[in-house]
Amino acid sequence: MEQMPKVKHVLTTKEFDRPFLDYLCNLTNRIREMHRTPEGALKLRSLWPHKRLMLYFTQPSSRTFLSFLAAGQNLGMDCAEIRDPRTSSEVKGESFFDAIRTFSSYVDIIAMRTPERNLAEQAAAHLDQTPRPVPIINAGSGPDQHPTQALLDVYTILRSFKEIGGIDGKTIAMVGDLKRGRTVRSLSYLMKNFHDVNLIFVSPEQFKMEDDILDFLRRHHIPYSETDQLKDAVAQADAVYLTRIQDEHDQMVGASAQVDYQPFYFTPAHLALLKPRGIVMHPLPRRQELDPACDSDPRVKIWRQERNGMWVRTALLHMILKNTEEISL
Amino acid sequence: MEQMPKVKHVLTTKEFDRPFLDYLCNLTNRIREMHRTPEGALKLRSLWPHKRLMLYFTQPSSRTFLSFLAAGQNLGMDCAEIRDPRTSSEVKGESFFDAIRTFSSYVDIIAMRTPERNLAEQAAAHLDQTPRPVPIINAGSGPDQHPTQALLDVYTILRSFKEIGGIDGKTIAMVGDLKRGRTVRSLSYLMKNFHDVNLIFVSPEQFKMEDDILDFLRRHHIPYSETDQLKDAVAQADAVYLTRIQDEHDQMVGASAQVDYQPFYFTPAHLALLKPRGIVMHPLPRRQELDPACDSDPRVKIWRQERNGMWVRTALLHMILKNTEEISL
Amino acid sequence: MEQMPKVKHVLTTKEFDRPFLDYLCNLTNRIREMHRTPEGALKLRSLWPHKRLMLYFTQPSSRTFLSFLAAGQNLGMDCAEIRDPRTSSEVKGESFFDAIRTFSSYVDIIAMRTPERNLAEQAAAHLDQTPRPVPIINAGSGPDQHPTQALLDVYTILRSFKEIGGIDGKTIAMVGDLKRGRTVRSLSYLMKNFHDVNLIFVSPEQFKMEDDILDFLRRHHIPYSETDQLKDAVAQADAVYLTRIQDEHDQMVGASAQVDYQPFYFTPAHLALLKPRGIVMHPLPRRQELDPACDSDPRVKIWRQERNGMWVRTALLHMILKNTEEISL
Repeated sequence: MEQMPKVKHVLTTKEFDRPFLDYLCNLTNRIREMHRTPEGALKLRSLWPHKRLMLYFTQPSSRTFLSFLAAGQNLGMDCAEIRDPRTSSEVKGESFFDAIRTFSSYVDIIAMRTPERNLAEQAAAHLDQTPRPVPIINAGSGPDQHPTQALLDVYTILRSFKEIGGIDGKTIAMVGDLKRGRTVRSLSYLMKNFHDVNLIFVSPEQFKMEDDILDFLRRHHIPYSETDQLKDAVAQADAVYLTRIQDEHDQMVGASAQVDYQPFYFTPAHLALLKPRGIVMHPLPRRQELDPACDSDPRVKIWRQERNGMWVRTALLHMILKNTEEISL
Repeated sequence: MEQMPKVKHVLTTKEFDRPFLDYLCNLTNRIREMHRTPEGALKLRSLWPHKRLMLYFTQPSSRTFLSFLAAGQNLGMDCAEIRDPRTSSEVKGESFFDAIRTFSSYVDIIAMRTPERNLAEQAAAHLDQTPRPVPIINAGSGPDQHPTQALLDVYTILRSFKEIGGIDGKTIAMVGDLKRGRTVRSLSYLMKNFHDVNLIFVSPEQFKMEDDILDFLRRHHIPYSETDQLKDAVAQADAVYLTRIQDEHDQMVGASAQVDYQPFYFTPAHLALLKPRGIVMHPLPRRQELDPACDSDPRVKIWRQERNGMWVRTALLHMILKNTEEISL
Repeated sequence: MEQMPKVKHVLTTKEFDRPFLDYLCNLTNRIREMHRTPEGALKLRSLWPHKRLMLYFTQPSSRTFLSFLAAGQNLGMDCAEIRDPRTSSEVKGESFFDAIRTFSSYVDIIAMRTPERNLAEQAAAHLDQTPRPVPIINAGSGPDQHPTQALLDVYTILRSFKEIGGIDGKTIAMVGDLKRGRTVRSLSYLMKNFHDVNLIFVSPEQFKMEDDILDFLRRHHIPYSETDQLKDAVAQADAVYLTRIQDEHDQMVGASAQVDYQPFYFTPAHLALLKPRGIVMHPLPRRQELDPACDSDPRVKIWRQERNGMWVRTALLHMILKNTEEISL
């Protein structure tokens, strides 16, 4: 394989370029292939048995948490977790920066999920001023960014379209709560790395994509349109990316419940409109916006997407560890 | 050793036959023997280092949780746990079936404890319709079943009676809250696999064994009697199996407190009535129904029973993994 | 190296003598050195892969918890944790002694932190009467003792002063809530093992060091003085040990807030008074009693102290396992 691109902190998807994405996806394929045999799985586990991964998740998570844990274990890493802030020293009045620096004393990578924006960036900047500048991975920062989700989404799209040219030239419809959907926000940034991608943002008026993302797309000459007509978008799209209402970020309790979300529910009727080689994705968890009756259609990739997350994160951890070998002690 | 019997999901004890029980108990003995030396312990840990065990325990547990964890670790498995549903995606509205399928994406066996009946069965049936039909182990389903407890109980009785013919021909008294005692319910099913077993159910009127179990026993021609006289039962029994009031399953708060449970407390006075080779068991945790002053009597097997659980579960996990090797990727 | 001193339960620091401390600190240095290379780190992990460490932490902790976990993992141990008592069988009415004995059934060492005094002692005494007398490590017992913190503190002081004669002959100022500061209480006991140490206790009237410790010091002819003048103490001391108000131990809610703690805050102005080879320590977490603006001064050892904890605990676990090899099955 070619030279490994540099990667340390993973904070947003803005920084990733095409060589990085290509390398990551190739490495993911190789790791997944290796893991098919017990011998290969053991070889992977022999790579980083002397490194420790910290999972600092103060916002609920099943998928991202379990797949990061599994990714670390796949590489033989020891793992440590803090999920309930009531068991940590923050209840004794410790500052966030002291807490993060404490974690950095004992581990080699910190993956963190928080309800706040920008906290991963602040953690990374703080650690970079210390003698143990441990890499930070943003595993979901409130309504803002979820870069590793976007990486597994790109991997899933590339893999689904590998015989028809990958992501280049495709139309991607993103549907639902785009305003606070950190997964679609992070995925949008990545589109700058592909040619002739066309985006359709499908949402109720109240949950339209924010201006910061639209500005970014205009600056990078990525065409997009906005609509509230799901059926039209499904008929045009190569990939349909559904999202849940992110009501945990409501400013006022119950605000989201005022929005009529039903026009953005994907049902078997929509499957009938989808291109034969089209795909349907969802970062999960879902509520009613994707009918489970759709799950058995091979174009619905949600469960592969989920398992892909483990493989992409395994590859990403490996790349970070390779790049930071020098800071191990 | 003989051919390994097939086992995948472990949902109730109804399905287990004598060859399975014999194989499991023999394998448990061998594993326990191997673990006595560091070399043997390491060999066990080299068996399944590329497999992952999920502990999904949304009902409190110390013993079952820790012994499943230890069992997985004994075989070298990586483990993942979700114990607090508030940290999982179910708080975001994810369905139980999506949650279980998510777990199945990242692990190779799921052991689950829930306050509800039948959920393990439903999980197994759901996964069997997916491309990753990961084995489910019921680690306690509300007041209904607790099959791995019954397996360790059988192992403990067999081991205690190995020089006097095993379980065949013995009288077993089950005492306490038989109505909602999932351990005695599961153990009762297993009795069909032995010859000339006689059961005595000792309970207050309000907590008598349910009809479904009594029907099962009649169908399998297993004689049983019902009484509220503990002393008589202790004098007759080879094994006395005590249980706690399961008041976490009360329909109305405080309902159990109305029942006079004191006549079902086992004290040193009862030990004096017990046969010289008789044994006393309890699945633990206990409250007052077994006086700690009894613990030092060698006929009281509760602490061996507890540690046996780890060895039996180690053997069971190994059998399941052997049987499901083909679904590993 | 010389003969390894005996150590089993670690309950208070009273029992430790100089040969033990010297051995532990030397072993810590060796382990830390070994861990610098991947080969050395792997060799450490090959030492105890068949042993299990239980972390029973029902009082919040980040540092002690994570560093014990990391210490166990450094030696290849499997780890199990119970942090939230609501997930354990104690909610079903299990006694503390049954809970501890249950843990002992599945693990080889138990590190426990509790809000109560003396519970670790009671646990150790209880287990010593059973067939599996698993070692207990007190990882913080309410306001009383925190022996492993004192060990890492001694290690940190020795290492900081290794070119100027170690701890012998030094003046150590302990500052803050000395009444309920279990770290300073445990550290005071250890001073009996060094020559010509002089202690200065700096605290508000309400939080003065308790008589049991002062009696101990007098019995061992260790000179001490008491003051509320931080600046004077800083100017005299070789080591300044700061502590947080332990208001979680308030008898009445808000009692600590009545105390004027600001005169005991350490700021850059105090750094200016500190000897050139003096050091500043804090067990963390901190609130305002140590200004983060001090952190970058090389005499402020708080982050090294934190990481030293992992190495000292790794060495301690190894010594205990070596000493208890015979009870492994």
